[in-house]
Amino acid sequence: MTDMRFVEVSSISEENINIFGRLCRQKQPLPLLFNGSGVEIVVTGSDLWIEIETDSDFHEPWVAYEINGALMSRMMMLPGEHSICLFRNMEPTTPKRIRFYRELQAMSEDDRCKVLVKGFKLDGEFCAVPNYTRRIEFIGDSITSGEGSYGNVTDVDWLAMYMSASVNYATMTAKELNADYHILSQGGWGVFCGWDNDVRHNIPSVYEAVCGLVQKNSPVDKAFGTSEPYDFAKWQPDVIVVNLGTNDATSFNQPPIYNPDDGQTYKMRLNEDGTKNREDELKIEKAVVAFLEMLRKNNPKAHIAWCYGMLGSDLNLTLTEGINTYREKTKDENVSFFQLPNTTMETFGAHMHPGLKSHENATKALTDYLRNKMGW
Amino acid sequence: MTDMRFVEVSSISEENINIFGRLCRQKQPLPLLFNGSGVEIVVTGSDLWIEIETDSDFHEPWVAYEINGALMSRMMMLPGEHSICLFRNMEPTTPKRIRFYRELQAMSEDDRCKVLVKGFKLDGEFCAVPNYTRRIEFIGDSITSGEGSYGNVTDVDWLAMYMSASVNYATMTAKELNADYHILSQGGWGVFCGWDNDVRHNIPSVYEAVCGLVQKNSPVDKAFGTSEPYDFAKWQPDVIVVNLGTNDATSFNQPPIYNPDDGQTYKMRLNEDGTKNREDELKIEKAVVAFLEMLRKNNPKAHIAWCYGMLGSDLNLTLTEGINTYREKTKDENVSFFQLPNTTMETFGAHMHPGLKSHENATKALTDYLRNKMGW
Amino acid sequence: MTDMRFVEVSSISEENINIFGRLCRQKQPLPLLFNGSGVEIVVTGSDLWIEIETDSDFHEPWVAYEINGALMSRMMMLPGEHSICLFRNMEPTTPKRIRFYRELQAMSEDDRCKVLVKGFKLDGEFCAVPNYTRRIEFIGDSITSGEGSYGNVTDVDWLAMYMSASVNYATMTAKELNADYHILSQGGWGVFCGWDNDVRHNIPSVYEAVCGLVQKNSPVDKAFGTSEPYDFAKWQPDVIVVNLGTNDATSFNQPPIYNPDDGQTYKMRLNEDGTKNREDELKIEKAVVAFLEMLRKNNPKAHIAWCYGMLGSDLNLTLTEGINTYREKTKDENVSFFQLPNTTMETFGAHMHPGLKSHENATKALTDYLRNKMGW
Amino acid sequence: MTDMRFVEVSSISEENINIFGRLCRQKQPLPLLFNGSGVEIVVTGSDLWIEIETDSDFHEPWVAYEINGALMSRMMMLPGEHSICLFRNMEPTTPKRIRFYRELQAMSEDDRCKVLVKGFKLDGEFCAVPNYTRRIEFIGDSITSGEGSYGNVTDVDWLAMYMSASVNYATMTAKELNADYHILSQGGWGVFCGWDNDVRHNIPSVYEAVCGLVQKNSPVDKAFGTSEPYDFAKWQPDVIVVNLGTNDATSFNQPPIYNPDDGQTYKMRLNEDGTKNREDELKIEKAVVAFLEMLRKNNPKAHIAWCYGMLGSDLNLTLTEGINTYREKTKDENVSFFQLPNTTMETFGAHMHPGLKSHENATKALTDYLRNKMGW
Repeated sequence: MTDMRFVEVSSISEENINIFGRLCRQKQPLPLLFNGSGVEIVVTGSDLWIEIETDSDFHEPWVAYEINGALMSRMMMLPGEHSICLFRNMEPTTPKRIRFYRELQAMSEDDRCKVLVKGFKLDGEFCAVPNYTRRIEFIGDSITSGEGSYGNVTDVDWLAMYMSASVNYATMTAKELNADYHILSQGGWGVFCGWDNDVRHNIPSVYEAVCGLVQKNSPVDKAFGTSEPYDFAKWQPDVIVVNLGTNDATSFNQPPIYNPDDGQTYKMRLNEDGTKNREDELKIEKAVVAFLEMLRKNNPKAHIAWCYGMLGSDLNLTLTEGINTYREKTKDENVSFFQLPNTTMETFGAHMHPGLKSHENATKALTDYLRNKMGW
Repeated sequence: MTDMRFVEVSSISEENINIFGRLCRQKQPLPLLFNGSGVEIVVTGSDLWIEIETDSDFHEPWVAYEINGALMSRMMMLPGEHSICLFRNMEPTTPKRIRFYRELQAMSEDDRCKVLVKGFKLDGEFCAVPNYTRRIEFIGDSITSGEGSYGNVTDVDWLAMYMSASVNYATMTAKELNADYHILSQGGWGVFCGWDNDVRHNIPSVYEAVCGLVQKNSPVDKAFGTSEPYDFAKWQPDVIVVNLGTNDATSFNQPPIYNPDDGQTYKMRLNEDGTKNREDELKIEKAVVAFLEMLRKNNPKAHIAWCYGMLGSDLNLTLTEGINTYREKTKDENVSFFQLPNTTMETFGAHMHPGLKSHENATKALTDYLRNKMGW
Repeated sequence: MTDMRFVEVSSISEENINIFGRLCRQKQPLPLLFNGSGVEIVVTGSDLWIEIETDSDFHEPWVAYEINGALMSRMMMLPGEHSICLFRNMEPTTPKRIRFYRELQAMSEDDRCKVLVKGFKLDGEFCAVPNYTRRIEFIGDSITSGEGSYGNVTDVDWLAMYMSASVNYATMTAKELNADYHILSQGGWGVFCGWDNDVRHNIPSVYEAVCGLVQKNSPVDKAFGTSEPYDFAKWQPDVIVVNLGTNDATSFNQPPIYNPDDGQTYKMRLNEDGTKNREDELKIEKAVVAFLEMLRKNNPKAHIAWCYGMLGSDLNLTLTEGINTYREKTKDENVSFFQLPNTTMETFGAHMHPGLKSHENATKALTDYLRNKMGW
Repeated sequence: MTDMRFVEVSSISEENINIFGRLCRQKQPLPLLFNGSGVEIVVTGSDLWIEIETDSDFHEPWVAYEINGALMSRMMMLPGEHSICLFRNMEPTTPKRIRFYRELQAMSEDDRCKVLVKGFKLDGEFCAVPNYTRRIEFIGDSITSGEGSYGNVTDVDWLAMYMSASVNYATMTAKELNADYHILSQGGWGVFCGWDNDVRHNIPSVYEAVCGLVQKNSPVDKAFGTSEPYDFAKWQPDVIVVNLGTNDATSFNQPPIYNPDDGQTYKMRLNEDGTKNREDELKIEKAVVAFLEMLRKNNPKAHIAWCYGMLGSDLNLTLTEGINTYREKTKDENVSFFQLPNTTMETFGAHMHPGLKSHENATKALTDYLRNKMGW
């Protein structure tokens, strides 16, 4: 550990660093905006440190890192500057691949929550990083935020520590397929409305901003421009996996909710026989159509695979009716529907969300599906 | 083994025998028309024999039997009268549950193929059989005929011996759910057309006959009235599982076929970009709608679950478009779509069909689904 | 199926047939003396029949056959001549590999039990069979006789139908390692005494005869010379797997038994604190030493692997004390001890014996062990 | 998070804290001497912090903690005082169970390596902890130190970060059996000599000291008295699991080593035919006998189970010869030998050591074994 020097993220040449996740205008220090957002480098040398800065209020960010593809550490980050040793005393000439990433989803409920990577301290050299020729964007809710992937089955608090990118079908699928990937997900949100009937909690409304999940005009937004339009041209995915619908389905069984923004009360209704009110079902379908149009506009060539079912498949017909309406309307055939394996008593993690085994099952099925669909 | 006596099937009182599968007008000897069709009894005594008569031309029927729920034997039946010992020298006072059933699907290509149960020889007494309060009808193609469930991965002949009810998600699901069940399936057939574009090979065209898969006016038909209208009132299922679409999907990649019945040539077409010709896709959807209407007419209260995906899920959007059109048209909400786990390199049986492991995976997923959907 | 001709087993040239299991002096028709004993051929042609003759009293033999390595049929054989169709209507030019074998162990309790293979009827040609360069001899008790590998967990009768070579770690291990194999096993027997303290029921006492399990001077013995000395020179194994000890362990917990042959009563005793009486334990060890000496005398170069533990490992120290005493006494180091995975609640078959899953677990462990030990 | 107060470990009443692992004379701050050594509390309140102090030179300690039995975090500890937030903003009235423990084995090669627990900061109350009525001591080598349980299969450095108590059959078995447990293990050590023939690296030589793995007269020893005799009376295990032999086996294939302590060179020899030199084998057996005597002297009532085989079972006969000699010599029958499942290509972790799957397999087998053996 001699001659440690500090290198800013922005000083690392492009072929020597992979950055996962959507980028904002600020590059130095580099904000990690979503779960799965991270940096990957390959270095020689005996020791490696990462310098980061974090902030938060209620929902502290968690981070994790892998060495040569194996998870080594996962920890809570309280507000402050952190100098984290990623490894020590390793054989200096052997290149080591390190991926450091954010575990916690973009937090719509914590105005200060952020993770900034300033750079690395090392006594070796940067080497070329793996070149991922495939790109996948994952769009989802709590499932894609890895909620419940950590914690005991009996745990029911809604806390940052139970969410992850490390035990997550999105991360695992990208690794299995050797792909670069983006995650954009929010626990409790849907394609039309949230689990609690809150119509403001729909992913399409934030998709086109850099990180629309961050409150507009919050300090984080002001600093990084998270509410600015996202420049899709910079990163075009081969596949977009949309894992939405689980919360829309739940809303039918939840009480009405008052929306202070427009003074109205909202509720997805069930008929007396327990079936879904057709008008309300059509709201979801309309949202599906509109979201597919939005995705297509911004990602002209991506295959869009709506992948749903890890917490029940109640909305299969509703979602496919939307997708088919979109197909009929646009003649766009580059879209598909794929059902993911359901979570069962043996595969639940914390608070009735998918656990490790369920994420592994989803990964296996989705990997097989994308290999066939994309000819990968 | 003293005092063996022969008892005709028709002489066994109703509470002492379960008969699986659709019945025709002949009750003695009892024809087993489909795979999974069989008889179940519980008897005391040390020895038990079954007396059957079989016939066939190219496609000999296979049969199997279970003792106390465990598969004990499986064998080929050549034409003739057979007296088969099912067990010997068992502890005489203990009741033994025996299920004897047909392994081979109804054969549309073998006019003589039949399995008739004449009765049992025993030295004990008949006891009450299990009372199955749940009823499931499975409608399908080669997957539901268990094609490839026996045989080596490299085997490619199309032969009776590779098909089964014993290694079959339909049988396993019914057992897991403690349900009575019917199977109606045919390898190569679809909801609109067969794998080879033969439009005559669609299941709806035979659904309303007793066993429409048997050639009309064949000796078997003449003897048993297999082409007569089936009396659905006699056995109303709680759930109908429709596992069709796999052959309709394949037809797009097969050459045109000449239909001697109408002198026309048929072909499901692909567009130049590899997508499905919309006109042809709509033929499938129309067939889906019509089939659902037919199923509903004959089974007013059954939940209809279209369960598809064990050999790829290419037709997910096509099938659901049909199902949704049916929903919209009829306002019938008692229908659902559920994707079954795909067969992969690790789970294939013979000639690229689902093997044991794939049928087990499907059973697990389908059982979980029906438990939730039906409140079982 | 034209021009079917009959070919006696003895007329098939050596390179065109594999015969599994120990042979007696009679070659035509060929007696299958043990479970796993069988014939393997590769033939062209569309149809194949096997001609066999069987006899038995209480314990009827079962047989099974595989096509291209996949189990196709399993059935009970009552006394008589049987002409069994093994396949029909197959693609005639493709060579098919068929293995037909006895499921039932050599029966020490049924003087008439036998399976004789007379020959084959076929319309094709015999081809060269696989050349197995590895040879394994399996010596065991009910575990190696596949007892309970068929039947429901609740079944407790002691019957031929519950035993097998088809669901059996010995058969599976040999197949996995691509090896020729012999089985010599008897349910209830031990290395020193049987489960019920019967000292006559020890495998070493019958090992050196052709098939010492068959009653001396019984019709079968008289016909085939099963009690004649076995000529070990004809078939020298690379490995001998001895799976004995399970019944010796059980004897300590069973009541005394009277031996009519010598008028004495026998009992393996437990001390008051539940440990084994040292004198009785030493009887087992002495038997282990003597048996190893007998095995070595007859198989000078074979690696002898004592593989034990599928129904508990209580005798680990007793057996190894015997093996180590043998090592010390003879300086023979070509012997080892390997513990097989125990059977648990999830892996039991019928009457508390290993089921399919347990045989699969044992196969996996034993295959890995032999690969390492033998450099295979 | 109001009214946080600090409570020293030594101030927590006995019924409110479980301490895992051997204790030394110092209780405040509390040294965690071995991997698996840790503290377990149950607290109410919204927030919980732990205050620790660590030191090390080359081999930095790692720590991990669980909430309600689920692993939440794992991290490297560099020298210094650390205030670690274990949870924040939890539902205050619900009791939370937290276990914080050392991942890294006692380090014989790092004189400064230590982890001290000073106490907790909390805003809730301590509740009664689980009462473990069963006690297991695990004695082992790198396997029991969890070497390779973290890291990629290709990783070969020998570093602290690859070792753990979190992915470790000892921890998992104790949890599965609801038992208190101690670990005493050292990578590379054996019952007679280390993997490299170093005869100083034998576990018996350090077993009777508090933590004899720490260098005598090192600062840590001076501070905590790790080389003092351990008072076995304070914690008598029900079972002692000895997982030693793997390194003794390896030594036969390694070059001679010079021992600076006595100026002699040591080497376990192979005969020309590849078998073990009998004199050297007997050294191991003598060590086994002596170690069993030592264990028995200090633990009069414990069942001693020698559990070996996770990295090959080459020493089965050698170890059992030692155990049997001990049995014969002492008439002590409260000892057994149990073979653990081998690690295979599918279950390796880093640098050819057991990975998660192998530790899970060992846990399953060992749990089943101890349940039967101990009547648990």
